[in-house]
Amino acid sequence: MLDLNTKILIVGLGLIGGSYAEALTDAGYEVGAVSHKRDDIDYALYRGIISHGIAAPEGVKPDPSYIGRFDLIIFALYPKALTAWLSENQSAIKSGALLTDVTGVKCAVVYDVQNMLRSDLEFIGAHPMAGRESSGVRNATKEIFKGANYIVTPTGKNTPSAIDKCRRLGETLGFARISTLSPEEHDEMIGFLSQLTHCIAVSLMVCKDSQHLVDYTGDSFRDLTRIAKINDRMWSELFLLNKDQLLRQMDIFTDKFMQLRDAIEREDSDSIRAMMRLSTERRSYFDIKQNQPNGE
Amino acid sequence: MLDLNTKILIVGLGLIGGSYAEALTDAGYEVGAVSHKRDDIDYALYRGIISHGIAAPEGVKPDPSYIGRFDLIIFALYPKALTAWLSENQSAIKSGALLTDVTGVKCAVVYDVQNMLRSDLEFIGAHPMAGRESSGVRNATKEIFKGANYIVTPTGKNTPSAIDKCRRLGETLGFARISTLSPEEHDEMIGFLSQLTHCIAVSLMVCKDSQHLVDYTGDSFRDLTRIAKINDRMWSELFLLNKDQLLRQMDIFTDKFMQLRDAIEREDSDSIRAMMRLSTERRSYFDIKQNQPNGE
Repeated sequence: MLDLNTKILIVGLGLIGGSYAEALTDAGYEVGAVSHKRDDIDYALYRGIISHGIAAPEGVKPDPSYIGRFDLIIFALYPKALTAWLSENQSAIKSGALLTDVTGVKCAVVYDVQNMLRSDLEFIGAHPMAGRESSGVRNATKEIFKGANYIVTPTGKNTPSAIDKCRRLGETLGFARISTLSPEEHDEMIGFLSQLTHCIAVSLMVCKDSQHLVDYTGDSFRDLTRIAKINDRMWSELFLLNKDQLLRQMDIFTDKFMQLRDAIEREDSDSIRAMMRLSTERRSYFDIKQNQPNGE
Repeated sequence: MLDLNTKILIVGLGLIGGSYAEALTDAGYEVGAVSHKRDDIDYALYRGIISHGIAAPEGVKPDPSYIGRFDLIIFALYPKALTAWLSENQSAIKSGALLTDVTGVKCAVVYDVQNMLRSDLEFIGAHPMAGRESSGVRNATKEIFKGANYIVTPTGKNTPSAIDKCRRLGETLGFARISTLSPEEHDEMIGFLSQLTHCIAVSLMVCKDSQHLVDYTGDSFRDLTRIAKINDRMWSELFLLNKDQLLRQMDIFTDKFMQLRDAIEREDSDSIRAMMRLSTERRSYFDIKQNQPNGE
C-alpha cells in the first residue's frame, strides 16, 4: 500500500475518477477533487467519497493553493483535456509530486505529457481496464475494479520508485492483476482486445434496423453487441489517438474474416473446420487462464 | 399443453435431445429414445429422463415395432443424418404421426423432408434457440430453454393443427417466447444473428496466438469470443446448408466495418460518432425489449 499520509488529488470526477475516489477514501486516504461541475463535487462530498473538492468551470483556473497541497495527482480526464489542464496548471503542483492517469491509449498521452512536464515532477501512465455502460460520478463504484486488470506503462523517464508506487496504487484500488507494459505494447494490445472489439460491435449493431430482430436473439448476438452502447465522444477520441495501431488490428481481423468467407464460398469444409478447431483450442486456453486467481 | 397421452420419441440423444427428454418426462409424458450409443440410452434411463429407449449403432436399423409406437417424433440429429434416418425408417412410423426437428437451418431441411415424406405423415420444422458450450446428453438440462426462443417454421404443406401442436410443444419445453417464421425468414434471421456472429468470434479468436493476451483482457474480448468455442462438425454443416444467406450477411457486416475503418483512416470524427450514436440507440432499444417478459 501507499503511505497513508499521501494526499491524493483526482482531476475529473466522472465514472472512473469517482470510483478511484471511493476506493481511496475507503482505504483511508485524504482524497481531494477538481471538477468542472459544482454539482459533481457536491454529490461526491454527500456520498463521502472525497474529503474536499473544488469546482472550476471550463475556462476558469482552479485555485493554485489547493492544487499545491497534493503528493499524488490522478488525471481522470479525456486525453486532450489532460494535456490542456497540465499546461495551464502545472506551475501550481507541489515539487516532487507524482502524476498518473487513467487514459485508454498511452503513446499519444505519455510522451507528450512527459515532454511538457516540469523537471521536478514525474508522470507515469496507467490504464485501469475497468468501466461500465453508464458514465458519470453518480454511477461510480469501486466494485468495477474487482477482477479487473491494471496496467502500468513506464518509459525510460520513469524512476523505479514511481513504478513501484503506481503498482501499489493499482493494488490499493482493488485490481485483480497488475501488469507492466511499454506504451507501445499497451497500445497494440488495447487496439486488438478493446478497440477492435468495439469497432466490430458497433458495425454489427448498425447493419440492420434491429427492432424486429430482438424477439429472436439467442445469447450470441447479445454478447457481441453488449459493448455497442458506447460513449461516442470518448471512444472516437481514443480511436483517433491510436489510429495506426487500430487500423492494423482491423486489417488483421478482416484478413481472417475474409479467409473464412472464402472457405464458405468454395464449400471448403476442411478449412472452415480447421479455423473452428483453432479458435476452440485458443478460447479453451483462455478459460483456463481466466479461472486462475492470478493470471499474471 | 399437448395431450398427455401423446407418446413421444426422441431420435438422437445429444445435448438438445437429452434436454427435450428431461423437460417432456418432467411434464408427465412417456418419452422414448433412439441413439447410436447404448451408453447414452443407459445414462438417460439412469437419470430418469426417458421411460425407455433403444440403441441402434450406425448402419443398424432400429426395431420398426419400437418406432411404430409413437405419436410425436422429434429429430435431434444433424441435418444430413435426419434425412438419411427418415429414408431408412419412415416406413415404420405410425400413420398420422407428427414429426418435428431442432435443426438450426430450415430451408435446406424442411423442404427436402416434406418432399420425401409419406403422405400420411406430417413434418413441421422448429428451431429451439438454446444451447450451451458443452455437448452430449451428460450436459443435458431443461434449464437451457428458460428465457430462450422457440421458432416454428411452417410451410404451405402444414396443417393448422400441426402448427398449433408444435407451438404447444415449445411451451411445454419451457421456452420464454414462441414465434412463427417462414423457413426463408428464419434462415435470413439466423444467418445474421447467429451464424454471422459465430464467424466473427472464430475470426477474432484466430487472429493471434492469444496466450499472452489473457492477462490483459477486459470483458469485451471475452464477450466477443465466448462463442468461439464451437462444435466444428455441426457448425460447418450448418454454415454450408445456409451458405447463400450467410455470405450475404457477412457482406453486409463487412460493408459497415469498412465504412468505419475508412472514417477512422481519414480521421472523420463526425462519421465515426454518427455510427456510434446509431449503434448505441439501437442497442438501447434492444435492452428495453429484452427486459419485457414477453417480447413477442
